[in-house]
Amino acid sequence: MKIAGVFAALTTPFAPDGGVSLADFKTNLRRYDKTGLAGYLVAGSTGESALLSDAEWESVLAAAIEVAAPGKILFAGTGVESTAETIAKTKRAAALGYPAAIVKTPHFYKPSYKPDVLIAHYRRVADASPIPIFLYSVPQLTGVTLEAPEVAALASHPNIIGIKDSSGHVQRIVEMVAAVPSDFHVVVGSASTLYPSLAVGARGGVLALADVLPEKCVELYDLVSQNRHEEARKLQLLLQHAWKTCLAFGSIGTVKYAMDFAGYHGGIPRLPLPELGEAQKEIARQAFAPLMAGTPIQTAGAARS
Amino acid sequence: MKIAGVFAALTTPFAPDGGVSLADFKTNLRRYDKTGLAGYLVAGSTGESALLSDAEWESVLAAAIEVAAPGKILFAGTGVESTAETIAKTKRAAALGYPAAIVKTPHFYKPSYKPDVLIAHYRRVADASPIPIFLYSVPQLTGVTLEAPEVAALASHPNIIGIKDSSGHVQRIVEMVAAVPSDFHVVVGSASTLYPSLAVGARGGVLALADVLPEKCVELYDLVSQNRHEEARKLQLLLQHAWKTCLAFGSIGTVKYAMDFAGYHGGIPRLPLPELGEAQKEIARQAFAPLMAGTPIQTAGAARS
Amino acid sequence: MKIAGVFAALTTPFAPDGGVSLADFKTNLRRYDKTGLAGYLVAGSTGESALLSDAEWESVLAAAIEVAAPGKILFAGTGVESTAETIAKTKRAAALGYPAAIVKTPHFYKPSYKPDVLIAHYRRVADASPIPIFLYSVPQLTGVTLEAPEVAALASHPNIIGIKDSSGHVQRIVEMVAAVPSDFHVVVGSASTLYPSLAVGARGGVLALADVLPEKCVELYDLVSQNRHEEARKLQLLLQHAWKTCLAFGSIGTVKYAMDFAGYHGGIPRLPLPELGEAQKEIARQAFAPLMAGTPIQTAGAARS
Amino acid sequence: MKIAGVFAALTTPFAPDGGVSLADFKTNLRRYDKTGLAGYLVAGSTGESALLSDAEWESVLAAAIEVAAPGKILFAGTGVESTAETIAKTKRAAALGYPAAIVKTPHFYKPSYKPDVLIAHYRRVADASPIPIFLYSVPQLTGVTLEAPEVAALASHPNIIGIKDSSGHVQRIVEMVAAVPSDFHVVVGSASTLYPSLAVGARGGVLALADVLPEKCVELYDLVSQNRHEEARKLQLLLQHAWKTCLAFGSIGTVKYAMDFAGYHGGIPRLPLPELGEAQKEIARQAFAPLMAGTPIQTAGAARS
Repeated sequence: MKIAGVFAALTTPFAPDGGVSLADFKTNLRRYDKTGLAGYLVAGSTGESALLSDAEWESVLAAAIEVAAPGKILFAGTGVESTAETIAKTKRAAALGYPAAIVKTPHFYKPSYKPDVLIAHYRRVADASPIPIFLYSVPQLTGVTLEAPEVAALASHPNIIGIKDSSGHVQRIVEMVAAVPSDFHVVVGSASTLYPSLAVGARGGVLALADVLPEKCVELYDLVSQNRHEEARKLQLLLQHAWKTCLAFGSIGTVKYAMDFAGYHGGIPRLPLPELGEAQKEIARQAFAPLMAGTPIQTAGAARS
Repeated sequence: MKIAGVFAALTTPFAPDGGVSLADFKTNLRRYDKTGLAGYLVAGSTGESALLSDAEWESVLAAAIEVAAPGKILFAGTGVESTAETIAKTKRAAALGYPAAIVKTPHFYKPSYKPDVLIAHYRRVADASPIPIFLYSVPQLTGVTLEAPEVAALASHPNIIGIKDSSGHVQRIVEMVAAVPSDFHVVVGSASTLYPSLAVGARGGVLALADVLPEKCVELYDLVSQNRHEEARKLQLLLQHAWKTCLAFGSIGTVKYAMDFAGYHGGIPRLPLPELGEAQKEIARQAFAPLMAGTPIQTAGAARS
Repeated sequence: MKIAGVFAALTTPFAPDGGVSLADFKTNLRRYDKTGLAGYLVAGSTGESALLSDAEWESVLAAAIEVAAPGKILFAGTGVESTAETIAKTKRAAALGYPAAIVKTPHFYKPSYKPDVLIAHYRRVADASPIPIFLYSVPQLTGVTLEAPEVAALASHPNIIGIKDSSGHVQRIVEMVAAVPSDFHVVVGSASTLYPSLAVGARGGVLALADVLPEKCVELYDLVSQNRHEEARKLQLLLQHAWKTCLAFGSIGTVKYAMDFAGYHGGIPRLPLPELGEAQKEIARQAFAPLMAGTPIQTAGAARS
Repeated sequence: MKIAGVFAALTTPFAPDGGVSLADFKTNLRRYDKTGLAGYLVAGSTGESALLSDAEWESVLAAAIEVAAPGKILFAGTGVESTAETIAKTKRAAALGYPAAIVKTPHFYKPSYKPDVLIAHYRRVADASPIPIFLYSVPQLTGVTLEAPEVAALASHPNIIGIKDSSGHVQRIVEMVAAVPSDFHVVVGSASTLYPSLAVGARGGVLALADVLPEKCVELYDLVSQNRHEEARKLQLLLQHAWKTCLAFGSIGTVKYAMDFAGYHGGIPRLPLPELGEAQKEIARQAFAPLMAGTPIQTAGAARS
């Protein structure tokens, strides 16, 4: 299994009655299928997995399997707090046809989750999983960080094939790339550091921003692949500017709003996640508009709004 | 509803097959019933609620209602990430007969949980709940903190009657007590700061340490009630010394081990939570032994080990 | 040497030309001499020592020695970054007649200042000092924290007789009091936690708030000494309310402004420290006014403004 | 003034009697003059400026002016806590012939140093300075961070021409480069992020690591200039590996030890900074040795040890 390129960390749209809208989810996915995205992460943090019931989680996973184009790689987000339940969810994802799972760190009892505890957890999950897994470190949400030594220790497990590092510290990407075998996949989960992470050796990105601007994210990846660093750097500055509004206002609400603006089905997040206020929407529109100008995306967005 | 005194934040024992041991849970509770504890928190953080299935959560709640002595006040831990599910769980606790719920802050999407979002969440829960609720702030686990201004804003809601603050900062207790009406219950969730919190106006404590040393915690509370501050201070020093080992080794595993030592059914926590190593056990025994000397607890503990 | 009670951490007034105003400094001190304060800290953090030249520092020290009433205990702030210069300053304070020095942690190269490095530094200073020293931990300013184990290790040095802990964590006071011999002086440097710190065994406080409200701080100390905890607790709430404005607006500028309001010579801090804006001044007046009502202090303050 | 390339943040050697060894300092500088370094920072954080007397500081500045080769650009570290003293030191550096100063943030009273206060401080310094200044943000040491909005606000001042950002967050470099005019110099102060920072648009680096491995740092800079990113990335991994030991053991002591190993005059830092223990020295030697192999540097190092 060889993974590279840009993956969208898909959002989960909700229907007016508050339930998951699989129809909107599938519509989005069919449009993403026409882009250069390498694949998708389904029911990850951006997919509001922490706010979904088990049945909803499974319905979204099944919908993605049903709709996604053949060439696209699908990841399932299966990491929850308990080791046993993480294993159960990973097995369920495998049964649904997922080729790999992305397993975020357990985090609630964080003072107990020392490196050796995290390593033992991941080894148990990987031992029991029928499909290969990616580690997933997102300290901004979890307060738990996987550092290069833990990643290197886990990279020797045959069923652990990569890490999604969303910490936003390029230095960590540098350290991880230096510490793992060359066939271990280090991918970045933070749009703010996409270009520098690719430059220092990350294989790709799994990004919420790719829900809004899939082609721009792919373009940046391609520029680096072609060693056109100066252009990549300039594109990063543009993406960075837009992404900052997401970080400032809460990423899921902003991504969903920007998806609406781009012609996708974003909608509002589930409570307690807030939706954007009017002033925030205006700022978000101004931040994203320049990146949508003159593209099919913009036309679709204009038609919808 | 007038709440004061010391409450045990109950652990959830597990059977050898990994399932919840309701038998051990009830046995513990029957012994606690003979102490001076004012009541119990069932399925809170110390109860490994984050590692329980919905069905397990409900079975523990039902068991406590069935067994607890009439005079003891029971709190249900009902806070989860989603507002809707928190409401559902709080309603379920009410239906089971719980007089009040303790609702921890949502936390996974912490960059989005600004004070106004947390206030809106708690108001929605309190509006929908058939029973009064306590706020619950435990930043060491959640990365989300309720500060005095938010607490004061929420204290005006007729169905929000108190807060369990486990932050361990006495200054916050001082600020909260100063900011809320006199009938709002500020209780402390951190054994490390039990005495000073009571001294500055907290009404009681909801403590994991009370699982191991219920009578000692009650004694400290009584000393403060009797204005015997010098003795209370000295007892705090002893409790503090023992509690530090819990903080150092991971509180749940240590509390459960010390419960075994004290003659309760502690056992080991659910994975990924680690159990204590041999060296840690030895340190824990030495830390807790002096507090158990010459008490019925010690005898029971000795008999068991 | 037996130290107890409340000490004012004196501010350093500046003249209109920007130089130190020793006249104003002495005028303040003569008024403090009539209060129940146990003594003074001269040229500590509140005295803007980090903004004074060596000559200014020495002039302030000399002025305090000249003016302070015989019964008052004087501490000199002598801690700077370099061990050698800290020793030189401590010797200079001793030569001027100071009975003790308060030595803050070095802090600029904080990643290097592991506990053993801090212990070695303090031992060198204590070995060389002709007068006993207090440790001083103020992590809010320095990013360096002295924890109970380090303090306990240093408490065995015959020339280290106490610690001023300004961290604001009562739990640390509890731990330090438990870890040191009974003749080692643990004093608190944070008005926010004065009462609970005294309640758990601190011997006194060295406080910027005592520059503004010396009698109130002394009153709180006396209440605890008389075991009148309920009254002490209520007074703490009042002091806390006022002190919060200091923390919000920058403590030195606010303390100096409130000193003006109380009839002392506060004035403005040295750049880059900001002075209060008009809106902040109004909030500070409202916060402090109730604590000055009906006292000689208020009259003096009214006369000046 | 157009600045680019790699600058060494020079250490300050001490003589056996504890005083500054200007002879060793000059010897080092003469060797650096033969490298591809663009210039030097004299008496910055790495130069132990926080541990030097005013007279020592000036002597080091004068020595560098005396010795440095004509083509090398010299920066003076002039930032201290007080605005007035920072101005005085900057004027003194100008009088000595320095073409520019690097001014670190004030930091001791950090709760007061809000962005507007920092902006006002830097404007006052820049207004009064006869030479252009660089901002300098090093939050690991100061606890104060300059973010892109402050930098952008200050970039409009005609006498503020750049920033040295040592925070180690590449995302900040990205944001700063995006926020400032194209003639404003963003340089990086952290060897851990040299390559990615250059890749995203930093103009150069001011690095302690360049004291030990000047040619390697210059080589990395040149590779990026030549768009040879893959080679640059690999070299970064090597440098990163060595630099990590510096971060782990305290950078100044390790840099000085590695300088000795490389044939420069490193020596030991001034107290309270610790020197390396034997085990640390062994690890440092193993970390740096591969980077010195086969170079004139190694030969010199071998000759000395």
